[in-house]
Amino acid sequence: MFQLTVLYNHPEDPVAFDKHYTEVHAPLAAKMPGLRRYTYAKPGPGPDGSQPAYYLVAVLDFDDEAGLGAAMGSEEGQAASADLPNFAGAGATLLVGPATVAT
Amino acid sequence: MFQLTVLYNHPEDPVAFDKHYTEVHAPLAAKMPGLRRYTYAKPGPGPDGSQPAYYLVAVLDFDDEAGLGAAMGSEEGQAASADLPNFAGAGATLLVGPATVAT
Repeated sequence: MFQLTVLYNHPEDPVAFDKHYTEVHAPLAAKMPGLRRYTYAKPGPGPDGSQPAYYLVAVLDFDDEAGLGAAMGSEEGQAASADLPNFAGAGATLLVGPATVAT
Repeated sequence: MFQLTVLYNHPEDPVAFDKHYTEVHAPLAAKMPGLRRYTYAKPGPGPDGSQPAYYLVAVLDFDDEAGLGAAMGSEEGQAASADLPNFAGAGATLLVGPATVAT
């Protein structure tokens, strides 16, 4: 399996981010061919009430590196990438690599 | 769904980290009751060859917050937590929150 993790920084306008992510970006990304599983999580504050390190964590699973490449290069993937500036101006960290299913 | 994401910093000794993680820590964590899915990914370098922001990304899925709490409080969860100092001295960022399955 090959996994793309996107760690979104805290946005200036969380309400606008949430609306755009759930109504526009997630539906766009979910259409990418070869995407096997796609989850996104909204971390809560730490045990001490501190702000979490990231605002949203998206995890996208593909069969292999070629599958991720094909998905990102597809019309749907390009639309999802082109949509990033529309809501993720605060920046995001992308991590891409082989993954193991432990359970 | 409720998700725990663990972002491990780059270890001083990657070979020792890998061995401990795959042979000891992952099998311990995988035994936690209520754990629905558990993957770990090893991010590769960025397109410019830069070191990825984190060394390893673990994503653990539970039914809900109570399920995560019960897993962490279980004998198996406590063993997994107690094992962290044995390999993760470089530190890790934990993110915990509700997750949506988009695909």
